[in-house]
Amino acid sequence: MFDFTYYTPTKVIFGKDTEEQVGQLVKEQGASKVLIHYGSGSVVRSGLLDRVKASLEEAGVPYVELGGVVPNPRLSKVYEGIELCRKEGVDFILAVGGGSVIDSAKAIGYGITNDFDVWDLYEHTRKTDKCAPIGVILTMAATGSEMSNSSVITKEEGALKRSYGHDASRPKFAILNPELTKTLPEYQTMCGCTDILMHTLERYFTQDGNSDMTDAIAEGLLKTVMKHALILKEDPDNYKSRAEVMWAGSLSHNGLTGCGTKSTDFVTHGLEHELGGMYDVAHGAGLSAIWGSWARYVMEDCMYRFFKFAVDVMEIDADPFNMYGVAIDGIEALERFFKKIGMPTSLKELGVEPTDEEIRELAHKAAVACGGKKGSAKVLYEEDFAKIFEMAR
Amino acid sequence: MFDFTYYTPTKVIFGKDTEEQVGQLVKEQGASKVLIHYGSGSVVRSGLLDRVKASLEEAGVPYVELGGVVPNPRLSKVYEGIELCRKEGVDFILAVGGGSVIDSAKAIGYGITNDFDVWDLYEHTRKTDKCAPIGVILTMAATGSEMSNSSVITKEEGALKRSYGHDASRPKFAILNPELTKTLPEYQTMCGCTDILMHTLERYFTQDGNSDMTDAIAEGLLKTVMKHALILKEDPDNYKSRAEVMWAGSLSHNGLTGCGTKSTDFVTHGLEHELGGMYDVAHGAGLSAIWGSWARYVMEDCMYRFFKFAVDVMEIDADPFNMYGVAIDGIEALERFFKKIGMPTSLKELGVEPTDEEIRELAHKAAVACGGKKGSAKVLYEEDFAKIFEMAR
Repeated sequence: MFDFTYYTPTKVIFGKDTEEQVGQLVKEQGASKVLIHYGSGSVVRSGLLDRVKASLEEAGVPYVELGGVVPNPRLSKVYEGIELCRKEGVDFILAVGGGSVIDSAKAIGYGITNDFDVWDLYEHTRKTDKCAPIGVILTMAATGSEMSNSSVITKEEGALKRSYGHDASRPKFAILNPELTKTLPEYQTMCGCTDILMHTLERYFTQDGNSDMTDAIAEGLLKTVMKHALILKEDPDNYKSRAEVMWAGSLSHNGLTGCGTKSTDFVTHGLEHELGGMYDVAHGAGLSAIWGSWARYVMEDCMYRFFKFAVDVMEIDADPFNMYGVAIDGIEALERFFKKIGMPTSLKELGVEPTDEEIRELAHKAAVACGGKKGSAKVLYEEDFAKIFEMAR
Repeated sequence: MFDFTYYTPTKVIFGKDTEEQVGQLVKEQGASKVLIHYGSGSVVRSGLLDRVKASLEEAGVPYVELGGVVPNPRLSKVYEGIELCRKEGVDFILAVGGGSVIDSAKAIGYGITNDFDVWDLYEHTRKTDKCAPIGVILTMAATGSEMSNSSVITKEEGALKRSYGHDASRPKFAILNPELTKTLPEYQTMCGCTDILMHTLERYFTQDGNSDMTDAIAEGLLKTVMKHALILKEDPDNYKSRAEVMWAGSLSHNGLTGCGTKSTDFVTHGLEHELGGMYDVAHGAGLSAIWGSWARYVMEDCMYRFFKFAVDVMEIDADPFNMYGVAIDGIEALERFFKKIGMPTSLKELGVEPTDEEIRELAHKAAVACGGKKGSAKVLYEEDFAKIFEMAR
């Protein structure tokens, strides 16, 4: 068991109608003016935005609003938010939406507390430990950004999708009402489940000794999400399943499923970021399209973990004399699950058919973004990234 | 899945030599003067106290010290700490020890930020949301107080052991170095493991629907602690096992293992508090001495959970046509485990042989402490408490 730091200061308020507490929660944080940040019109149409405003008004907290955040949230919207916040004297950002909205809110939070170009953080040419306080009302279970320290922003020029993380950006509170996710289309729900699974899988596959406690949590989380994703496929209004997935989503990326491991992998995420930047695909779908290829590419260097995954998560019969076969069975079982919930397991199924040149560009960008190498199951370089993209075709 | 709030702001710094970071951590908290609070001489003899002082001196943070905290920490020591802190202008309390020291530190923290008798909180005649900031260097894995919001103090007059909890008392940071627990006598290590198990069990047995995610964490935690307690019985220096137990101890009582359940039980804890107050027994041993009797007394009202516990934790073969028998087998299996690690499963084995009158007094005090009734597996009253004490003889 390796040394670690665990820090999850976000106060989670979980359950039905919890968004009605938002005014009080923002007030407790000492906000003098709030930016309500959101995405598409669904937050407006559902009446959620009106309920949020009513709660803020009741608490006597003034606000301005900025909608229009899109999936793979754009740097231009972040700049717009920073300018608005500065003009209006905003000191608290309330994200009402999914991961894209929260990530955009974090970037705005960095922007208004620092006097340099916020993109420098995402380019990793600058650092900061300052971020304006963030609150969240979550409408989609997926990225875990509601408890995490990371955010991912896409710069339109050059189609660059980049991430930055600091504990200062961990939200002060996260309101999790599973009912708010019921209106999501099936495809988005399943993209979310895939992203949740991947946040734990990215921490699970490491070559070095893991922690029994962390493995138990990780394996329990993976099985819980798979079980309830299948239920939601048939019964999207199932509150219990919405709730199980939502809570698992927050736990999957707040650090808990990586405590005591030597490092995290996140190669699949790194490769998907380039796909998302270049083709604007849904994040979860991009992940499932790549994962199996990544897994086959690295499994021989991380055999025991793939064997354990197959046995303890995918419930393949343990046969220690055939670790390779069991490990492959485990990978195939997860791919079958992805297909069952309508997720792609190749780039073609994702709707992306990159040329050889585009694959070289994707791999090169991925290498630049990670500083040349990445991975804990196996350390990979630019040429490995290209091979995985080719396998995933 | 029921509504819940989850709030664990404590920053955990886990691993070897992490106590050397304490000066920096205290400084980051803005402390101007620190009380180093500790228990017996072992902290002095091991050299830990000197290392802590050196780290504070290096960070330029002045301190005073107060040792002498005993198991079932006393109100008189709390008063002594409050007086010292007021005289010396202390604004940060650093607990170096196990649960008793942390609980005493929390009580002092309440005391110096409020102008009434701190015992009023533990008598539940007053409330507060103010507590001085606390930091922890943990030397025993057991109570989970390093991340929890609760503290338990014993008033010598009347032998009253009472608890108070508020999020304001959750420590700002907790330094968890498993090596610091290696010098503990076996009995104390096993008392700690028992307490850790019980914090999850008290949340596990509820009549109403639970959460799959929470059950997976709880069951994984119980199995992890049992596995590594048995290893530590043979090999007390095993770092990995010390680490697994230590991390499980913090997770067991920070709220995570109760998310989404309707309520918690804590009857066994309530009864043990009276034993601890009257006979000054070790907390973990008091819990194991009572648990089996409590379990047999309530199991018919909470049958499915006892069945599930037997199958999913104690690995009894599932036989749905004999739920009662399987449930009993599960209880007996845990009692066998307690015996294996040297823990008592009756009051007699605990070394306590109360008279009938004393049992009535224990039950009466337990009823007063909980306001007349308590329990989620089954709601129990004073006469039930007396019957459980009798069964446990």
